[in-house]
Amino acid sequence: MEKTSVTLQDIREAAERIRPFIRRTPLLREATLDNLLGCQVYLKPEMLQITGAFKLRGALSKILTLTPEERARGIITSSSGNHAQACAYAGQLLGIKVTVIVPDDTPHLKVSNARRMGANVILWERTYAERWKKVQQEVEEHGYSIVHAFEDYTVMAGQGTIALEIMEDLPDVETVLVPIGGGGLISGISTAIKESNPKIRVVGVQAANSDGFRASREAGQRIRIQSKPTIADGITCSMPTERPFQVVERYVDEIVSVEENDIREAVRQIAREAKLIAEPTSSVVVGALLAHKITVRPDEKVALVLTSGNWDIENIGKIFKDEPVPGVL
Amino acid sequence: MEKTSVTLQDIREAAERIRPFIRRTPLLREATLDNLLGCQVYLKPEMLQITGAFKLRGALSKILTLTPEERARGIITSSSGNHAQACAYAGQLLGIKVTVIVPDDTPHLKVSNARRMGANVILWERTYAERWKKVQQEVEEHGYSIVHAFEDYTVMAGQGTIALEIMEDLPDVETVLVPIGGGGLISGISTAIKESNPKIRVVGVQAANSDGFRASREAGQRIRIQSKPTIADGITCSMPTERPFQVVERYVDEIVSVEENDIREAVRQIAREAKLIAEPTSSVVVGALLAHKITVRPDEKVALVLTSGNWDIENIGKIFKDEPVPGVL
Repeated sequence: MEKTSVTLQDIREAAERIRPFIRRTPLLREATLDNLLGCQVYLKPEMLQITGAFKLRGALSKILTLTPEERARGIITSSSGNHAQACAYAGQLLGIKVTVIVPDDTPHLKVSNARRMGANVILWERTYAERWKKVQQEVEEHGYSIVHAFEDYTVMAGQGTIALEIMEDLPDVETVLVPIGGGGLISGISTAIKESNPKIRVVGVQAANSDGFRASREAGQRIRIQSKPTIADGITCSMPTERPFQVVERYVDEIVSVEENDIREAVRQIAREAKLIAEPTSSVVVGALLAHKITVRPDEKVALVLTSGNWDIENIGKIFKDEPVPGVL
Repeated sequence: MEKTSVTLQDIREAAERIRPFIRRTPLLREATLDNLLGCQVYLKPEMLQITGAFKLRGALSKILTLTPEERARGIITSSSGNHAQACAYAGQLLGIKVTVIVPDDTPHLKVSNARRMGANVILWERTYAERWKKVQQEVEEHGYSIVHAFEDYTVMAGQGTIALEIMEDLPDVETVLVPIGGGGLISGISTAIKESNPKIRVVGVQAANSDGFRASREAGQRIRIQSKPTIADGITCSMPTERPFQVVERYVDEIVSVEENDIREAVRQIAREAKLIAEPTSSVVVGALLAHKITVRPDEKVALVLTSGNWDIENIGKIFKDEPVPGVL
């Protein structure tokens, strides 16, 4: 029977499944950021997760539910970024063939990273629709199982395990800030939180240049916006897909958007004060507080999910020096 | 009675004393570095420690043994770097007056950091000897207690708590790599390890441009060398002092030195693979393996102590882009 939602119970079961294979990241109390961000700051550093991003949680959650026959045929996904690497790593770990359809302008480094982990990488056209057409074609030909980055409830359940860890480490957490791109992460996290304790506030954060969830909430329905390029290249979203949109509308209290300069400044502050490499995608949650986009009290306990740290080291260097990054600013 | 050494028991007691005030850092299995470094890599990321460096362990270990009268009079130290910040933080935490004598060419940022935490910062002459003369003068006038960064057994005991955590998290660790500057850190760590399990190998790592411990071991006695500037500015050592030298000669199996280019490359690799900001001082342990200065087996479990992450963010940016850093290279 096809699932029609993700539940707290699903997330608890996902946590059991993936526990042997993932790193339980710490929750870091970062008092040196309190003044700047206006609250009691706790960081959940998923850049310390294996593969440098939370995505491994969702990929493993899904792959570990496949039957032996499905595993023998292999899996497929389309992604140019952290989800592709997570699938490649999980496939190598479990001895499963992995095929990834990536845009043909994907940086060489990301392609070679996925290939290094044994994935079969197919360069295909730029548009999302064309790539997923190719995925379907491959599925029909080879019988692969699809591991979608955010349109899959079992993947969402894996991402939601982050929230279980936050609530375990900080039972009186009051607010949780989560980046939104495709919406898989915040779907899992908001479900885990609201079905555990509805009083905890969940705030989603998007890049202002590509904030389809914020715009759709405002419009009262899923709409398509004209995205502009953003340095937070892992969370572009011109239009939400159906499943995450439903979960977000049900469980997420607020959605805010952050401008490019605040995203850049957040990368610097996270490095300076927390000694962590956050890719810009990851740092929007800090940027939202820097730019006063969310109302918080000085004594409020706020957990910020830092999703990932996979970004070209030279570009990180440029951000540290406040120089333009090619192709973006 | 004055202590004449540091023991495993001292280190266990220090761990109890400081536990409520420090962060227990994780031990991160970093498999993506295995191929590059030639062994099974485990990182102990003390840049995630409060104040961004391990130094808080030693400072608190000492300050918490002071009598109420001593605390009321205040403490003093001389340091331009992480130890000064640790003392300032500990003083603020415990309501103790802190005086720090710093070289008069200390970067403004470090002075203002210490002042921001309430320390009384006195700019004094450049040489170590002149500054400690000033410390003695202040002590005679005000009755301050001295918290020395590495010439104090109770401070060493605090630093040694890192080793207890490593052995707890990885009981079958085979080799531990530790940066050596003044030698306080490795004195505590090597004592904790050799008095627990003498089979665990302890290797000290210095910057080749300023490796007084390595040279002194070779000479069979403490000697003074002519240091050159190093990007690892927190571990310069022209000549070891008596106490750490004795402990190091007793308990440290090997001492190796690392060249500037390998230190820089290590900073980049730690950022790229582990997503952590390591100041160059901290990264010498990775540099030593990169440069094949230590013989390791591919299946050998090696823990690397990353001491700190407090470095000017623009300079870190320059290292990421492989540009020269002013005043050094």
